[in-house]
Order: sequence, then C-alpha cells, then structure tokens
Amino acid sequence: MERKDYLKEPVDHIKIDAALTVDQLMQQFKNSGSLGAGRLAAACDIYEKMLKDKDCTVFLALSGAVVPAGMRTIVTDLIRRKLVDVIVCTGASMVHDAIEAIGGHHYKGTCAANDSELYKYHLFRIYDIYVPEEDYVKLDFQLSEMYAEIAKERKGESLSSEEFTWEIGKRLADKHSILRAAYEENVPIFIPALRDSEFGFIHWLHSSQKNQKNVLQVDAFKDVPTICGICVKSPKNGMIVIGGGVPRNTIQSSALASKKGLDYAVVITLDRPEAGGLSGSTLEETVSWGKMKGEADHVMVIGDALMIFPFLVASVTERIGPEFKRTPFFQLNRTVGKVN
Amino acid sequence: MERKDYLKEPVDHIKIDAALTVDQLMQQFKNSGSLGAGRLAAACDIYEKMLKDKDCTVFLALSGAVVPAGMRTIVTDLIRRKLVDVIVCTGASMVHDAIEAIGGHHYKGTCAANDSELYKYHLFRIYDIYVPEEDYVKLDFQLSEMYAEIAKERKGESLSSEEFTWEIGKRLADKHSILRAAYEENVPIFIPALRDSEFGFIHWLHSSQKNQKNVLQVDAFKDVPTICGICVKSPKNGMIVIGGGVPRNTIQSSALASKKGLDYAVVITLDRPEAGGLSGSTLEETVSWGKMKGEADHVMVIGDALMIFPFLVASVTERIGPEFKRTPFFQLNRTVGKVN
Amino acid sequence: MERKDYLKEPVDHIKIDAALTVDQLMQQFKNSGSLGAGRLAAACDIYEKMLKDKDCTVFLALSGAVVPAGMRTIVTDLIRRKLVDVIVCTGASMVHDAIEAIGGHHYKGTCAANDSELYKYHLFRIYDIYVPEEDYVKLDFQLSEMYAEIAKERKGESLSSEEFTWEIGKRLADKHSILRAAYEENVPIFIPALRDSEFGFIHWLHSSQKNQKNVLQVDAFKDVPTICGICVKSPKNGMIVIGGGVPRNTIQSSALASKKGLDYAVVITLDRPEAGGLSGSTLEETVSWGKMKGEADHVMVIGDALMIFPFLVASVTERIGPEFKRTPFFQLNRTVGKVN
Amino acid sequence: MERKDYLKEPVDHIKIDAALTVDQLMQQFKNSGSLGAGRLAAACDIYEKMLKDKDCTVFLALSGAVVPAGMRTIVTDLIRRKLVDVIVCTGASMVHDAIEAIGGHHYKGTCAANDSELYKYHLFRIYDIYVPEEDYVKLDFQLSEMYAEIAKERKGESLSSEEFTWEIGKRLADKHSILRAAYEENVPIFIPALRDSEFGFIHWLHSSQKNQKNVLQVDAFKDVPTICGICVKSPKNGMIVIGGGVPRNTIQSSALASKKGLDYAVVITLDRPEAGGLSGSTLEETVSWGKMKGEADHVMVIGDALMIFPFLVASVTERIGPEFKRTPFFQLNRTVGKVN
Repeated sequence: MERKDYLKEPVDHIKIDAALTVDQLMQQFKNSGSLGAGRLAAACDIYEKMLKDKDCTVFLALSGAVVPAGMRTIVTDLIRRKLVDVIVCTGASMVHDAIEAIGGHHYKGTCAANDSELYKYHLFRIYDIYVPEEDYVKLDFQLSEMYAEIAKERKGESLSSEEFTWEIGKRLADKHSILRAAYEENVPIFIPALRDSEFGFIHWLHSSQKNQKNVLQVDAFKDVPTICGICVKSPKNGMIVIGGGVPRNTIQSSALASKKGLDYAVVITLDRPEAGGLSGSTLEETVSWGKMKGEADHVMVIGDALMIFPFLVASVTERIGPEFKRTPFFQLNRTVGKVN
Repeated sequence: MERKDYLKEPVDHIKIDAALTVDQLMQQFKNSGSLGAGRLAAACDIYEKMLKDKDCTVFLALSGAVVPAGMRTIVTDLIRRKLVDVIVCTGASMVHDAIEAIGGHHYKGTCAANDSELYKYHLFRIYDIYVPEEDYVKLDFQLSEMYAEIAKERKGESLSSEEFTWEIGKRLADKHSILRAAYEENVPIFIPALRDSEFGFIHWLHSSQKNQKNVLQVDAFKDVPTICGICVKSPKNGMIVIGGGVPRNTIQSSALASKKGLDYAVVITLDRPEAGGLSGSTLEETVSWGKMKGEADHVMVIGDALMIFPFLVASVTERIGPEFKRTPFFQLNRTVGKVN
Repeated sequence: MERKDYLKEPVDHIKIDAALTVDQLMQQFKNSGSLGAGRLAAACDIYEKMLKDKDCTVFLALSGAVVPAGMRTIVTDLIRRKLVDVIVCTGASMVHDAIEAIGGHHYKGTCAANDSELYKYHLFRIYDIYVPEEDYVKLDFQLSEMYAEIAKERKGESLSSEEFTWEIGKRLADKHSILRAAYEENVPIFIPALRDSEFGFIHWLHSSQKNQKNVLQVDAFKDVPTICGICVKSPKNGMIVIGGGVPRNTIQSSALASKKGLDYAVVITLDRPEAGGLSGSTLEETVSWGKMKGEADHVMVIGDALMIFPFLVASVTERIGPEFKRTPFFQLNRTVGKVN
Repeated sequence: MERKDYLKEPVDHIKIDAALTVDQLMQQFKNSGSLGAGRLAAACDIYEKMLKDKDCTVFLALSGAVVPAGMRTIVTDLIRRKLVDVIVCTGASMVHDAIEAIGGHHYKGTCAANDSELYKYHLFRIYDIYVPEEDYVKLDFQLSEMYAEIAKERKGESLSSEEFTWEIGKRLADKHSILRAAYEENVPIFIPALRDSEFGFIHWLHSSQKNQKNVLQVDAFKDVPTICGICVKSPKNGMIVIGGGVPRNTIQSSALASKKGLDYAVVITLDRPEAGGLSGSTLEETVSWGKMKGEADHVMVIGDALMIFPFLVASVTERIGPEFKRTPFFQLNRTVGKVN
C-alpha cells in the first residue's frame, strides 16, 4: 500500500442543527466513519444488505434482559415483518416473554434497591427492574399444564428446543408475544440451554407430580441437525448478536458444522476479547475456524446492546420503508420436521 | 451509625521487600483491605471458610478458555484433593479437556495472527492460542465410538448432562483430565448447554451414521433434579464462579429452586452489572430472588478470572496446608442415581 | 416503602414500525425506562432541564478522540447556539481542532493497520484514524509564531489555560473550529493539563529558539480562580461529561472548591467504578464530597460517548426546536478578566 | 510462516499443590504463556529486563487511587531501592500521599455507603474508602504555609511541576512518604495536571490571602524540557503504567518529542481501545507515532492495576533478590536544574 492510499477519505463532521430521523443521523455516522459511530453505521449497512440479499437467512441471537429492557415488541415486529428468520436465545428471554404473555409485567425500579426488603416482599430484581413472584407462580402453573398437554400429544416422543418453543408459542394467546409471533410466522426459536431457566425448573415440578403419566421429553441434541440444516440449505447465512454467550456460539458453530461459514455478522457487546471467552471474541478469530468467511461483511459494535439495538432497527426500518416485502429463503416444514 | 464508626480501620500499606509467598502477599491485601486487592483477599477468606465448613458443598462454575489458559491441572487437582464438590461448566471447557486427554494440545500463539492463513492451515484460534483441526477430528472419531458404546450400554435410556460427563470421563485414560478425575472422585460435572459445543455436533454425526442402531440419548431436563437435590441435601451451599454465563446462572437458580439460597459466593468476572445480563449482575441482586441468602459471605472480584483464579487457589492451598483433609458432605450414589 | 410502591410503573415496550426521529425514539426509551435505554432517556431529560433552567451554567467536559470521531461540528454548534457555557477538555482535543482549523484532516482507516508501515510513512494512528505528520509540522510552525506574538503582546504576563485557548482561538480563521467559535462566543475553554499535548511540546521548541526574546508564559494555577468564580456566581451548575479523566475531575472539584455542588450531572463513559479511578466513579460518590448536591438530577450512561453523545444532542435539539433562545447566566468579562 | 511454525510451544498447565512464592507461580504463568496469565508473566519479564539493562531509565506512571489502595509503601520502596527513576502521576496521588504524611489516614469502608450521611459527617468517599475532611483541612493549612515559604525562597521564579513536588517532599518529615522518598533519592515526580487536584485549590486560597506578598508561581510548561531531556540523555527508556490518562500520555509523548521512542513498555489497565481514548489505546498504535519503537518489549495487561501491580512487584523483587544493586543511568542535577 502506498502512502496516498492511507489518506483517501477524511472524516466528515456530524451536523445536528434540526430534528433528524434516526437514519439521517446514521447516514452522518457513516460519513464520519470512524470509531464507535462508524461501527454502528456499518452495522446498519450490513443488516440492510442481509435483508436485501434474497439468498440470506437472518439469525438473531438474544441474550441478556431483552424483554425487561422494553425490547419485546421490537423483536415481535421483526418476526412479523419477516426481518429475522431464526432466533437463538437464552431460556430467560423467553421466560420473560411468557411472563408478559400471561398478563405479568416488569416494573421500573432502581438498581440501588434494598434487596433484603425486596426478598421479604417476594419481588425479584433484574438490575433496575422488579418482577413480582406471583407472576412466576402463575407462569409455573400454566406451563405445568402445557407441559402435560404437550407430553400427552407427543406420546413419549422427545422434542427439540425449537419444537418446545413452537409448542409453547402455540399455547400463548398474546399477539405481542415473541413466542406467539414466532409460532404464527413459523420462525424457529432455538434455546440451546433450555434447562438453564424457569423452563427447566418447572419441568422438575411437572415431572415430580404424583400420577403424572405424561412427562414432557426434550432431547438435548435434537435441535442440532435442524439448525445445521437451515445453514446448509441457505445459500447465505448472516447473524445479528445482542450480547453473546450460548446464542452467539450456537449460531457460529452451526455455520461451522454445516461447512458454510457466515456471510454477514453484526455483534453488539460490551465483552472484550482479551479474557478469551466466546462472548467477547473478535469476528476475525471466527475466520480461522471457518465459522465466518474471510470475506464476510462484519462488524463488532462495542456497547450496551439494550441501548444500541433499537437505533439499528430504527435506522434500517426507515431505510427499507413501509413497502418493503421480504420472502425468507428458508422455510421450516413443520409437517415433516425438515427444512424446505 | 455514628461518625466514629466510619473511621475504625485505616488502610495498611502493602510491603514487598523480599520474596513473599502468594498467601503472605494476600494477607497484606487483607490488611490494606480496600478496592481490588481487598476484594481478592476477601475471596480467599470466603473460599477458605467454605472448605472448613463441614456442612458446605462447594460448586465451581467454569466458563471461558479455562483449559487453553493452562488451568486444567489446577481444576483436576482441586477435584482430587476434594476442594470442589460439584462442577458446572460450558461444553467447550470439557471439549478442550478431552482434546488434551486424547493427546491433543493447545499451542501458544498471538492474537494478531492472520486468520485467513490459519484457516488455510486448518488451525483454530482462541485469542492467542492455536488448536490444530486434526485434534478435533481425532476427538470426533473417538467420541463417536464412545457415544455408540454408551448408547448400547444404556439401551435407550436417556442420560442427564452429568451422567454424560461421567460416562465420557470413565472412557478417558489421562490422569490429568478434568473429566477423568471427576469420574474417579465422583465429582459430578454438569453441562447445562451441552449441545452448544463439539459434543453436540459430534452427536449429529453419530446419529446420522448409517446403520447406527444405538443412538445416544441425552435428556435436556434430567440433570435438574440432581443438582437441585444436591442443594437440598447440603446444609450449606457455596459457589466460586470463573466468568459467568450459563454455569453461574445454573448454580444460582438451583439454589433458588431448592429453596436453600447460597451461603457463600465468590464471582471473578470482567462483566459489569449495568447491561442487565446475568454474568455481570451483582450478588446483592441475587438476594432479592432468594438465590443467595442476605447474610451470605460474598464478594465479586472484578478481573480476568484466568489470571486471578490461580492466585486464589495458591493462597488457599498455602493456608490449609498439605495435611488438610476434607470430607465432602454430599456424595452422589451412582448405583441408585441419587444424592446420599 | 410498601410493596405496592415498587410496582407502579410497568416497562412499556419500544415500538419501531416506521421512520422515527431521534427524539421520538428517545421518548419511547423514556417509556420503557429501564436499563441502558432508560438511562440515556434520563440524560436527555436532564440536559433539556439544564438548558431551560435560566440559573444554570452548563459545563461540557471533553476527553478522548472527539474531533477524530467526527464530533467537531457538534461541539462548535453547541457553542454558537449557546447550549454550552464552559468547556473543560484535554489538550489533545484542541490540538485536533487546531489541526483541522489550519487545513489538516483526520483520515478514515483501520485499527488493524501495520503500525511499522505507518511509522515509515509518517502517518500517526488514533485507533482507526490516520493523521499525516505534515499536518502536525504545519501546526507546530503556525503555533510557534502565535506563541511569540502572544508573548510579545502580553509582555511577560502569564496566561491561564483559558486565556491561552482564547488567544489561539482569536488567531484561527476557521469558522468550524471549536477554538474559534469559543473565542467568538466568549465561551471559555479550560485545559487543566495543557502541557500534556502538542501545545506543551511546541512550547519547548518555541522557548528554545535562538534569540527568542518573548517566551510565552502560562501559569499552571491561574485558571483555578476563574473556573471557581464561574461556579460561585452561577446560581446553579450542571455538567455533561464525555469520557472522564482530568476534565470531569476539574469540573467536580471546582463545584466543591466553590462550595456550590453541582445541580445537574450527566456522565457518558465506559469506565467502571470498582477500580477506584475518578473516571469511572459513581455520581453518588461525589455527593459525599459535596461535589454534587444530594438532590441533583444526575445519571451515568454506560457506553462509548463518541457513539452516544450525538443521539443525546439530536434528541435535545429536536425538543427545544429551532426557535429556542438561551441567554447564559454567566458571562466572562474579558476586559477585566472576571466573571460578571 | 509454515504450518509447523504455529505449533511449536504447547501450553503447559499451572500446578499448585503446595505453598508457592509469587515468582514461582509467575514462572508457571510463563510456562502456560497464554491469555491473561501469560501477559502478566511477560510484564514481569519486561520489568526485570528494564532493571537489568544498565542503559534504561524506568518511568512509572501512576493514576487512580494508588495510596487509598494501600500501595504507598510499594512505591516508596521502589524509589528507595532505585527500581524506578522517574514518576509521572496525577495530582490526587500525591495529595493522598501528603494527607498520610501529615498524619491523616484512608479508612476502610464500603462502596454501598450512604453518601448523604457521609456528606453530613464530612467524610469523603473514594469507592470503598473514607477520608475525613479534617485531614484535608490540616493539609490545606500546612501546604499553604509551605507555598508561602517556597515562594519566598524562589523570589518570583516559577517552578516546574517537578520542582514543586521536590519542594513539597523536602518539607514532609514522613519517611514513608512517596514525595519525601523521591526528594531524598532525587527521583523526579512530574504532575502534568498539577492544578487538577487539591494542590491547585490550595493555591487559590494561598494566593487570595490578604497581604500575601509571596505568591507561589508554577509554570505550566517548564517541566517539558526536563522530562524530554531525561529521555534524550537516557540511551533507553522504559515505562510501567498503572492505569492511564495524563501520566501515560506524558511519558509516551516525551519519548516522541525527544525522538527516542520507548524501548520497553508495560501497561496495566481496564480501559479498552475501541473508544479511541489514550488510556485504552494499544501499544501497537504508539509505534505509528514513534512513541514506542517497533521492536520494543511491550505488553498490556488487562486488569485492575491496584490488584495486579503488587504481584508484578513481588515477582520481580523475588527474582532480583536482596543483593541486587542498580545505578540509575540518569541523574538530575538539582544545582544546575539539568539532567546529567
């Protein structure tokens, strides 16, 4: 590279002198094009590109307090508008969704709360949010009934985590529910660590009930061929990661196991690479494994995803406009349990 | 509180003028007693107290690159010396252990490597460490055989994640292996997100082999009653967390589901609470849920666990001395699959 | 507090189904009201309140790569629209501004650059931005002349850091320059660590020139009474902090030394409190010192200020509208060097 | 690079089965050689190499709560044993040192304190440490007298920050004081942002006293040629950075301005590079500027320096042994105010 090649694009300065739409500001971030604002603008470009690439399946990884942070409707709308094709998430995320689906709520509070008093009052704290225990009890009761019903229908057949969420979504009436929307729109939700959440502990109650004839079976490995099958069938695969952990790892590993390698990747995280954990690892590192292609469009945005993801969604929503229609490449055939 | 009550203990200054043992330095950290050094000293005190409390079961949560970071023998020795009673970890940790158990290695490298070249050479990078693909291929081959053998023995019975690790440990010859040591010492290893690792992808290969008559079954929920049973039977429960994620959540939730609440907790992490994720959440927050008792001895050490955990182990090893013998309160009865 | 008092405000979910202005999205963040999005919305409310409080002087603390990140015009416009009254910043920030004022540029690059090649090419890297050395050489030459001229005018009188920036601003022609705008609008710019920047090293060249009769004198302490005087005279004081370090500390300490205590505070930072440094310290901690009043409106937003500050400015710009006029309470009287 | 070149050194596992000295453990970290533990071991090696390189001047940068964290004696001893040659620090660090030198203390507390109550009691909080206001008042009184005395002796001559600390050190009797030890051992202490600390606010009181004939003058730029002169005269220059901020920047920029470039660099910090600030910037980046040589021995340790620095000092103290004598290459000639 010659010296002049390094000096091609000066940083343009962002100008804010009137009301701006989110995407107007994002376009300015693209012009400045450096540091955090530059990375966020790049993330928007990549997501837009994924959506307009007819060959690309869009995976969304969710971890952290997505629902308590007020992002439930954002995810539901992405599903209904066919702007995500597959979700991989923590169990807690869908427990939070189910809590609200049955009429429960997350309440605004403070991180400086007196936790002993909260304990006394049976209020559970998630940073600056409270959830009353009775909402969990109600959930336990309803899920327990659903488990028995599903088990009865399945007659001893084991479910995958993705069939589990489909069955739960089918039984939730709330249109605003992520699980319900995913059921209606046939967007699979994978929960690789399903047992590490209220879903697992309710199962314990369910299975230890006296005279319980039908115990729900979930096979730990059954969703592996399904998610890998999606990667295999899709000409291209892209992911957007909120946070990290198991959901990010599952998508990346599926891209590897299916010998495809991701074509697009956006990660929003506060985790850092030096500690060696998966959540903070660079996307460059994934290239060595074949989890992501060397030529993939990719960016890591360093920040709190629960603050930043809405800006990304708002920017891209504005770009594609209300008329935008997208037909997912991939379609799960529920009748035969295969990827079409 | 009166004013004078705030001014009781001045910070003593650390003195390093000759060779010090790790615990001699840690005792000075205790005397200084503030900020990071104070917290690390408190962590050592709490772990020592856990070990000397005959009623306490010690849970160790492992996440991140524990084995690639050179901490495999530390964990193995803790198992053999009965200084941990239960391990909850990521699938990757035990895959890394198994890689070494069958003769593979993790190699020192650099985080500034050319990942496209590494990909070409079939070398996988974990931050500044390389693993050759052939070690994974070898593992795939051997695990695949083990899976078939276990399936044949179990005759269609589903395993829990903890039975899975026990069966694998039984089949590894390497005395330095965490899985092997845990098998020999009857220390259960739970992997709540078992499928999110090479163990899951090998299962796909295994189950899709032609003429595979015996497919290994792992039940997603089966380990829930086991780990909760341990919490219930133990008069007290304590945890040491390296990192966060699913392993930390599983221990905390088990303490909640079993209505016990942790009595001791040490967390070493770089994650921060403000993002609302479980990994960085404060231990105070867990009190509101009943995951930890309000009066529990607890501390969060902010730092890279892969650098800090060895100092904690060295300090406590020195304190308890070579003669220290510990009889775990809890003992898993393998014959009947129950906690004694 | 009774139980029901904890359960007053459920988290509302953010809805993004069409193009939104930045403030429309921010109002939704206010309704969700939890975690990072909730904090950012609170920051916007506090800044709006500061601007509408006729008794409040607004201090802006700048650290980090503000100009290379494309935020130069944002700051200049805030000055010209009288939306900040006092700036406290690092020397580097104003060096970067001066570089552009004399025709230099910051160029978009990559953080994965070959630094040895950049060194060979005389290109300086700031994360993913390059600056050619010739821009610095040009600055050195021009500043050196300015120094001699200022020294000649001042006839041996020592300047404060704030008088220094005023004199430099006076000599820069670029209307887009922060220094120039501050000069024209009589907004004082304090650089407490002036010498820790190119301004200091140019001084060395300047003062060691042969036959240099007029050496510029800057008194290390002279700006202390000026900034404290501003705090004293202002009925209320508020600060917005981008990053941390010396600029944040200077404002907080001035509020303390003037026995006023801040009435409003917004801090945007990635630093964390546990390490004990000033940059990451909580705003609660400042209450114990009297740096901030116990009842002050305040919030810390955890994130990369170079990505987040533009959203805050855009939201508040939209709220106050184009007609908004603000008369700063405080006015520096340049003739007598005192606060009016 | 060929494939086999990537696979030369397997990670050895750390073994802790008996009491270990800090350096015995550090040697094991060197053998494991990866991730955080590997970086910390490299930091020890580099510091040892600096000390044994007769041509190298050792700069120590201090920021954050070094004295409240109990690290005062560590720094004092490094000075007295001639294991550091130059200190660059924040004003607060030396204020904390002076507080203790005149009989004040930092008290162990909790970060969960009630700050309004602390304010009422006139107790200042630094994370989990309290300092009573009366210690500051006492310091104000004594420093004010020292300022007058120094001003009288200097007869209108301006001091550099380094002469200022030398004069204060001369007037403190406490042998454990960093300022005093530095005075006695002729180790210069530079405080580039001197005014951003109690030293600056006391100056305001001092200079506004009625009938104050002798006002202490500190020249903002006067220490620039001194620190650059040290870099120029030293055949090699190395730095150890605790934290970041102005102290790190000053050393790096001095190495640049003196056209030397650092030969050794160790940085211990929690700051990250992506935000673009100096504190978190990589050492690679400094190569592009010429602040560090491309071939320099260097490492960044990601962690809380107030926990990690003592391990580094203990390891190197043990390695060099009690007999180790070091003659600094550089010696400041106080009589003529020049570097010898």
